[in-house]
Amino acid sequence: MRRSRLEAFSDGVLAIVITIMVLELHRPEGPHFADLAESWNGLLSYAISFVYVGIYWNNHHHLFQLVRQVDGMVLWANLHLLFWLSLLPFTTAWTDETHFAQDPTMVYGVNLLMAGVAYYLLQLTLKRLDPHGHLDRALGADLKGRSSPVLYVIGILAALVSTWLSVAVFVGVAAMWLVPDRRVERTIAEVHGDGSPEPL
Amino acid sequence: MRRSRLEAFSDGVLAIVITIMVLELHRPEGPHFADLAESWNGLLSYAISFVYVGIYWNNHHHLFQLVRQVDGMVLWANLHLLFWLSLLPFTTAWTDETHFAQDPTMVYGVNLLMAGVAYYLLQLTLKRLDPHGHLDRALGADLKGRSSPVLYVIGILAALVSTWLSVAVFVGVAAMWLVPDRRVERTIAEVHGDGSPEPL
Amino acid sequence: MRRSRLEAFSDGVLAIVITIMVLELHRPEGPHFADLAESWNGLLSYAISFVYVGIYWNNHHHLFQLVRQVDGMVLWANLHLLFWLSLLPFTTAWTDETHFAQDPTMVYGVNLLMAGVAYYLLQLTLKRLDPHGHLDRALGADLKGRSSPVLYVIGILAALVSTWLSVAVFVGVAAMWLVPDRRVERTIAEVHGDGSPEPL
Amino acid sequence: MRRSRLEAFSDGVLAIVITIMVLELHRPEGPHFADLAESWNGLLSYAISFVYVGIYWNNHHHLFQLVRQVDGMVLWANLHLLFWLSLLPFTTAWTDETHFAQDPTMVYGVNLLMAGVAYYLLQLTLKRLDPHGHLDRALGADLKGRSSPVLYVIGILAALVSTWLSVAVFVGVAAMWLVPDRRVERTIAEVHGDGSPEPL
Repeated sequence: MRRSRLEAFSDGVLAIVITIMVLELHRPEGPHFADLAESWNGLLSYAISFVYVGIYWNNHHHLFQLVRQVDGMVLWANLHLLFWLSLLPFTTAWTDETHFAQDPTMVYGVNLLMAGVAYYLLQLTLKRLDPHGHLDRALGADLKGRSSPVLYVIGILAALVSTWLSVAVFVGVAAMWLVPDRRVERTIAEVHGDGSPEPL
Repeated sequence: MRRSRLEAFSDGVLAIVITIMVLELHRPEGPHFADLAESWNGLLSYAISFVYVGIYWNNHHHLFQLVRQVDGMVLWANLHLLFWLSLLPFTTAWTDETHFAQDPTMVYGVNLLMAGVAYYLLQLTLKRLDPHGHLDRALGADLKGRSSPVLYVIGILAALVSTWLSVAVFVGVAAMWLVPDRRVERTIAEVHGDGSPEPL
Repeated sequence: MRRSRLEAFSDGVLAIVITIMVLELHRPEGPHFADLAESWNGLLSYAISFVYVGIYWNNHHHLFQLVRQVDGMVLWANLHLLFWLSLLPFTTAWTDETHFAQDPTMVYGVNLLMAGVAYYLLQLTLKRLDPHGHLDRALGADLKGRSSPVLYVIGILAALVSTWLSVAVFVGVAAMWLVPDRRVERTIAEVHGDGSPEPL
Repeated sequence: MRRSRLEAFSDGVLAIVITIMVLELHRPEGPHFADLAESWNGLLSYAISFVYVGIYWNNHHHLFQLVRQVDGMVLWANLHLLFWLSLLPFTTAWTDETHFAQDPTMVYGVNLLMAGVAYYLLQLTLKRLDPHGHLDRALGADLKGRSSPVLYVIGILAALVSTWLSVAVFVGVAAMWLVPDRRVERTIAEVHGDGSPEPL
């Protein structure tokens, strides 16, 4: 199975997920700036989800540069990840409509958690196909990957105190991922010799 | 006609179909977990349709790895398949809204059946262009392909007894397809010599 | 400018146009087959538009296989075509909601007409860049291309008598295009030597 | 990191943004031409946004033909641009629904302004990776890029007088960009030797 088509399909799904969330944004009811202010929750949750999908796309991209071969198991692990990411517009819209009420915020956190778990499982299926241990070296201790689920759980539970605390945790995890992973880039550079981009 | 552009277009349509179904999911009416429970039907039908589109994408991918040349007939047989798959968001939403009522569940089964028929016709048009009989060998007795329509009909009729029986049949057919088709992968490996992924 | 990215973008837009129309389909109001019957208009107009977008994708694909170079003018002629095709979900939904009332059916015809005109203009901009006259030879007298606008106008005016007559004309034009254009395929085969698909 | 996947993802998002705006278009309430007239505002704002997304796609395409290497910073600068462009369906729909009322028109202008700023930042991140100064030469004094933000601000403020004046300014900026940028095309031709399209 060719890696390129799996990447193309994933890119397609992620591009759609990241974009259709805007269709769920509550349109302001009236023609004044004040009406826009009521969309504030929606814009915030849209921005958070946008960044998360961007992070997954980025990490997905890095991950697959280190493997050449994919099989049916990888494909389904990948679809499993896409399933949870495709639910983001749904959970995002629920937090928006309820102005980050407690239960929807927790459900949003569970969605992030499940996507994180799915990504972890995807890594496991890819490691099976990686004879040279590139992935192992690239991921190293995988501190981000290991700490994220814990942080998501903290964020989910934080909603019992204050949903804004949850939002702060979710934003924090995103910020942690935004810092580029030098380790992966270094391994890619090693694998491809000089770090120059592949000639496609 | 290049195979690659047909694959790219199909990937695009399937990626959109699999993703926009989430737009049809009934948003919970209130801010409580109990309200989410009312979306349960929707999430179930979403998950089933998601898996079906994933299966079609997977099989489509395998199928086209075995042919090099496509013509106008293949293109239209492919669009015919995409047409039925593109109706899934519509029939899925109807089962969701009616909580798997009898008629919508039967219509959903007919949609699955028509997609299965369209896939079978697509295989026929591709076999015409396959001088070496790769496809014939890869598909072999094609037990899954042959039994699926029968099972869909059973699932459709089962709705007359209980729509949950229908759902069980549809889930069962999906599960049957989830088991990877070693035969096709083996033939691809033979065709491409060593089973390594094509260099694009 | 690379042809490949223009094709990829056009494929993306066409894949989305062909798929999102299903979001506009009126969901049946109740859980019975009789309720589905009320969606009949919608399914018909969806199917017609689906086939038209499929035809444009097919022709677009053939057209660009005969040119190697594109410039800014081609890009905008292409976007002009995509603009009219992107309005199809809008005009399709209007005919659906009004059960093929007279004015919406005429507007739908105008949409098809404008797309046809845009395609003609796209051909003109491509001919400028075709030093060897491949396109001229491929299109020949271009009977289909020349007769379509006339037929669209007839279809539009037919709505003054009966909108079902219009629908019949629009279906007829689509059927005319469904017959594959041997001439183009032959020229492509000549250009690429043996008619085998490009190795991309 | 491969440039090609970044381009493919951006193309996907832009193709979706340009297409889903049609879903937001207010459907005419009745079956008569007069009802369509009420959609006039919507069609106008749709057309303007369509052209803007088309311009960004075009410029994006040119820009990335001049760089070979992208890094994490470019990726996020690119996602930042896509974020603002993905909000266009939201702000476009608000101007449509309010018939170009003052505040929504100003917000629409701010959206265009932020996209312009994001594009400028993207250029900066790409210049870092351009050892041969191709981009600097291609962009030259970058009169369009430098004047656009100023013109957007003028357009935003013009809404205080008349929103149609704003619309005129926004249309004017789009028209300015529609004129192809010979300078960039010339530099691409130099870089790739003969101006012929890359063999992908």
